[in-house]
Amino acid sequence: MKEFLSDDFLLQSDTAKWLYNIARKEPIIDFHNHLSAKEIYENRNYDNITEVWLGHDHYKWRAMRSNGIDEKYVTGDASDYDKYAKWAETVPRLIGSPLYHWNHLEMKRYFDYDKPLTYKTAEEFWDIANNKLSLEDFRPRELLVKMNVIELCTTDDPVDNLEYHKKLQAEEKRFKVRPTFRPDKALNILREDYNEYLADLEKTVGYSINSCDNLCKALVDRMDYFEEVGCRISDHSLEGYVYEDFIDNKSGVSVEELINSIFEKKHNGEEVSQYEAKVYRSYLLTYLASNYYKRGWIMQLHIGALRNNSTKSFEKIGVDSGFDSADDFSYASQLSGLLDAMEYGDGLPKTVIYNLNSKDNTTIATMLGNFQNSEARSKIQLGSAWWVLDHKRGMESQLESFAESGVLANFVGMVTDSRSMLSFTRHEYFRRILCNYIGNLVENGEYPFDKEVLSEIIRDICSNNIREYMKK
Amino acid sequence: MKEFLSDDFLLQSDTAKWLYNIARKEPIIDFHNHLSAKEIYENRNYDNITEVWLGHDHYKWRAMRSNGIDEKYVTGDASDYDKYAKWAETVPRLIGSPLYHWNHLEMKRYFDYDKPLTYKTAEEFWDIANNKLSLEDFRPRELLVKMNVIELCTTDDPVDNLEYHKKLQAEEKRFKVRPTFRPDKALNILREDYNEYLADLEKTVGYSINSCDNLCKALVDRMDYFEEVGCRISDHSLEGYVYEDFIDNKSGVSVEELINSIFEKKHNGEEVSQYEAKVYRSYLLTYLASNYYKRGWIMQLHIGALRNNSTKSFEKIGVDSGFDSADDFSYASQLSGLLDAMEYGDGLPKTVIYNLNSKDNTTIATMLGNFQNSEARSKIQLGSAWWVLDHKRGMESQLESFAESGVLANFVGMVTDSRSMLSFTRHEYFRRILCNYIGNLVENGEYPFDKEVLSEIIRDICSNNIREYMKK
Amino acid sequence: MKEFLSDDFLLQSDTAKWLYNIARKEPIIDFHNHLSAKEIYENRNYDNITEVWLGHDHYKWRAMRSNGIDEKYVTGDASDYDKYAKWAETVPRLIGSPLYHWNHLEMKRYFDYDKPLTYKTAEEFWDIANNKLSLEDFRPRELLVKMNVIELCTTDDPVDNLEYHKKLQAEEKRFKVRPTFRPDKALNILREDYNEYLADLEKTVGYSINSCDNLCKALVDRMDYFEEVGCRISDHSLEGYVYEDFIDNKSGVSVEELINSIFEKKHNGEEVSQYEAKVYRSYLLTYLASNYYKRGWIMQLHIGALRNNSTKSFEKIGVDSGFDSADDFSYASQLSGLLDAMEYGDGLPKTVIYNLNSKDNTTIATMLGNFQNSEARSKIQLGSAWWVLDHKRGMESQLESFAESGVLANFVGMVTDSRSMLSFTRHEYFRRILCNYIGNLVENGEYPFDKEVLSEIIRDICSNNIREYMKK
Repeated sequence: MKEFLSDDFLLQSDTAKWLYNIARKEPIIDFHNHLSAKEIYENRNYDNITEVWLGHDHYKWRAMRSNGIDEKYVTGDASDYDKYAKWAETVPRLIGSPLYHWNHLEMKRYFDYDKPLTYKTAEEFWDIANNKLSLEDFRPRELLVKMNVIELCTTDDPVDNLEYHKKLQAEEKRFKVRPTFRPDKALNILREDYNEYLADLEKTVGYSINSCDNLCKALVDRMDYFEEVGCRISDHSLEGYVYEDFIDNKSGVSVEELINSIFEKKHNGEEVSQYEAKVYRSYLLTYLASNYYKRGWIMQLHIGALRNNSTKSFEKIGVDSGFDSADDFSYASQLSGLLDAMEYGDGLPKTVIYNLNSKDNTTIATMLGNFQNSEARSKIQLGSAWWVLDHKRGMESQLESFAESGVLANFVGMVTDSRSMLSFTRHEYFRRILCNYIGNLVENGEYPFDKEVLSEIIRDICSNNIREYMKK
Repeated sequence: MKEFLSDDFLLQSDTAKWLYNIARKEPIIDFHNHLSAKEIYENRNYDNITEVWLGHDHYKWRAMRSNGIDEKYVTGDASDYDKYAKWAETVPRLIGSPLYHWNHLEMKRYFDYDKPLTYKTAEEFWDIANNKLSLEDFRPRELLVKMNVIELCTTDDPVDNLEYHKKLQAEEKRFKVRPTFRPDKALNILREDYNEYLADLEKTVGYSINSCDNLCKALVDRMDYFEEVGCRISDHSLEGYVYEDFIDNKSGVSVEELINSIFEKKHNGEEVSQYEAKVYRSYLLTYLASNYYKRGWIMQLHIGALRNNSTKSFEKIGVDSGFDSADDFSYASQLSGLLDAMEYGDGLPKTVIYNLNSKDNTTIATMLGNFQNSEARSKIQLGSAWWVLDHKRGMESQLESFAESGVLANFVGMVTDSRSMLSFTRHEYFRRILCNYIGNLVENGEYPFDKEVLSEIIRDICSNNIREYMKK
Repeated sequence: MKEFLSDDFLLQSDTAKWLYNIARKEPIIDFHNHLSAKEIYENRNYDNITEVWLGHDHYKWRAMRSNGIDEKYVTGDASDYDKYAKWAETVPRLIGSPLYHWNHLEMKRYFDYDKPLTYKTAEEFWDIANNKLSLEDFRPRELLVKMNVIELCTTDDPVDNLEYHKKLQAEEKRFKVRPTFRPDKALNILREDYNEYLADLEKTVGYSINSCDNLCKALVDRMDYFEEVGCRISDHSLEGYVYEDFIDNKSGVSVEELINSIFEKKHNGEEVSQYEAKVYRSYLLTYLASNYYKRGWIMQLHIGALRNNSTKSFEKIGVDSGFDSADDFSYASQLSGLLDAMEYGDGLPKTVIYNLNSKDNTTIATMLGNFQNSEARSKIQLGSAWWVLDHKRGMESQLESFAESGVLANFVGMVTDSRSMLSFTRHEYFRRILCNYIGNLVENGEYPFDKEVLSEIIRDICSNNIREYMKK
């Protein structure tokens, strides 16, 4: 029996251990997360472990609710210690959950605390963690340095002024914080606050946006601005559907007329149909993609979140609070249509596609190969296991799917996709799983033990590939 | 090499063996099956092993047909011995099938017979089994006691008078047989015999059912009656779709008017459309759910059976004879809509959701978390691997999905879902798989070897959780 | 650690090794591939390893593109050596890919070359392979004999004259090359060249085809001809959908009238709707099936390819060049409808169903059982892991699905589905995976170590079952 969370955690063979010894030294380039540049810039100490662990983490909130914990202790007005105690009570029940591993990796790597969290150790760890959190080297930036993070990409709206990214870049040389261009609000014309959003964008760019052409111009102007602040990546959440063919549409008018008429409708407060909204988003997405392509940016597509499922909880607690799950619509032909429209049109950028439902692994992994070319090594990528799939089995399956249908050695690797400053141990988690997977192939005689090639592959997946992929 | 079906069957580690030693002592609460209360009450000896094994078991019938056996030996007029011999001929071909394990577990645990069933042992086992089946302690009730069954829930129509449940409860103190409220016939308005069914229900409740309101009242009255006879659980089979939004429907009239107009149509012998049938079922299901909620009942949803696929065999042999399989429609947003309508409306009861297609594991496992709260520990549950998924890999995958997205320690555990009195060894099968899964986590250093916590988790999943979950 | 590609490659237990010692001696009956009877008949030496490996193999082309190789070296005008060198450069990156295994199995079994292909060994292997390819016993027929291939089925259009099949059968007694009847072009009425195709068919049968009845007659006449040349199998690619109910169609006219009116439309150059095309294909497929049934032929259904996804590459490079992937539409009820229409109508032949998306394993594996009967042992079969699923995990999953829901011992086994003369080592790959899977069952105590039964099962799956299944 292996000790819990030992040095060989998840490494089942000598080859795996050998590989991990290479992997663990690689720096972290976390190219997709939801951290706050402001929080990093201001670099204030956290009040206590509850703030760090339970402040924003809807993964933990869900687990607590699933354990029958009252909302008072989740997002309610209970004291920080009581919330923490309820979490500590929940943890031992999380056998087989990635949260169990993440939680203890964070305790061990950040706080040097070795014992499992239970009602017996809860108080002890509360004191130890909080003492440490009050120290200078437990402030956000120091936590990043501690984890060997050399670059990270936050997620930002085109209207963001990126003030803190700029300040950070001027001041902080140990790591680079880049913005990511995520224009979801500009693409979803069914939002009730769509026109308000455009008003914000108008204010940001300094001219009026009274047509879709103008909107396009404004977004491109913001791309220019984001690029100045180091942006190399965009991000889109595709929910409900992936693509509606706007080129061969049934409207009887030109694409431009159609799109502008939809814009007009919304502008005038008229109702936009589901079909029109789909055409509109597909048009804009394709337009933006051609601009990403020109800049050599990466496009990320996150497909299939089903959000705010509980109206009751949405009204009480709001968005991004743990009431989202995986949708299950079919989209192979839509995704094909989208990528084809881009490639045949004005440009298909380097693209990372993330699926949220494990049933879609084959679909995406085999779709990639249709659009690869010499513009990059594995120009189109299957993204690392995302959100509800971000667990050991999910990661293993993502690696297997990538390897079976593509060229795994070109994989750009892990992202935390996290709102938590302590989540960088998930890179360790990923790397252990990666090394174990490749180690098993070698141990089983499915790949030769060629030290040179193997260490190159590990280093590539851990950091070289993404470094190369982010270049122009 | 491990001996076939040894004491350590399916237990690959010492931890697994240690855990199973706890699990095997737990009593069985089989909260979903299709046993006959009458058969248990009457407690007659079976004629022979063919009656027990092949009398109702469409799993075995399918396997025989797949082995090229003529229908004469399956459901036809061949002699009991000849049917048995054809089954014995089929068994060795079932390598990798759960039937192979179930069959031999039954031979071993009920009849103390150790050898594999083949044409060589067929005659010997025929004699041994039949001799034993003629003994007093091989009658239905004694078989239940032998397996440590302390509670079981049959599946019953609202019109059932539950006569034998009452007689059993009066007379038999070693175990409790509860009814389950399964009103599928009342919800499926497309059935040709729908009005006849309502006539039966009228007779049962003693008043006329001439509106949907009346129907609702009748069903609630039957719930009262079922509750008196110990019912704590309902069951619904959702086929073809899961939910049609009846609240925001397009009819232009109030929900009540709409539903009653559909009822009216059917009542008058007019045709009801597919859409109307969907609205009708969704309305009634939500209405019933609010009544389950008030009572603290459990609601079971069995999603995605595709029934009577072969018209030829249906006409010749009938329903529930082995001609059903897994449907594959998408239903994440429908399931979200259903649970949301209940929760936002008059009540979402404790709910166990069973999927029949392995592709839906992520969908359901991640949907649960949207509706959890403090009313129960894991109020919404992913049901144990069901029907065509009820095999080792299916069970492992269900456990993994539950653990990855929820709180596995709160899982209410296994049900046989069976029509066979010998099927209780499937709980042993499940428990071995469970202990092996958890044992592997511990052996791999993914969970600490904390004897206290681990034995609590095992006992919880085997019997404590369901006991707690069935309470008001 | 096991040596790469050792004698025990993929065999993890002693039982697996024991089983493989039986499997490896069985002859190969490759009942589905895309080899050229002409190439086999003419039996010319290949120019070099590039011709054999990269001439037609769109699997390798995809891998090279995914590795960022310029199209010039893939299908372009680079020299044969340069193309080969780019492939050799790509190979070490293919860790975890079936291509890595296939490639090295071919190097070892055909060319007795043991070292992994890398930039270091590329030149050495180029020389060795090309020297051997110039020898007499490296011509196509000798390569087949070397691999113990005793029978193979090519894929042929009804208009093919099968000249080379006949010549081969007259001359070559070491193995038999049979044609397969694949009338896809006759069933897809949306093809622009449909009428040209009918003109070809007219020429072939020698009478005019001016109605669907005539077309049916012509196809049956071609079946007669194919049967004379040894055909026992048909093949259909079902893309985009599986079945449209033509019997209960909404047209208001008889099926015959409807079908003939669709034929008429196309004949007159009018546009045929999507719905009409579906009805038409479903009708013809069912009609053909009844004729396969009469003849005792096998029907193969390949479901779910999504072809020519990249318009840009299609225009530049054409069909079957590596721009196809797995579709993900739902089809359980359609497949049920199709098989039911055949069975209830004029005949459901022995049928092998292949899925391209792993999410459909449960759907198909459980559908089979609805239509089994005594006409054959496992009359309806889940086909071996196909195309993008033809890798270790895909094969294991196909075997598990077959075993869990059917009678694995009756499985008709592996096909290469390949265009490459060197691909027969894939049977070895499959057999190793099969033996390892069954070996694990035995080692884990899930099946007894009964040498007689186990060796029968292995021989059955490797060659006996398909031999029996192909009989009338």
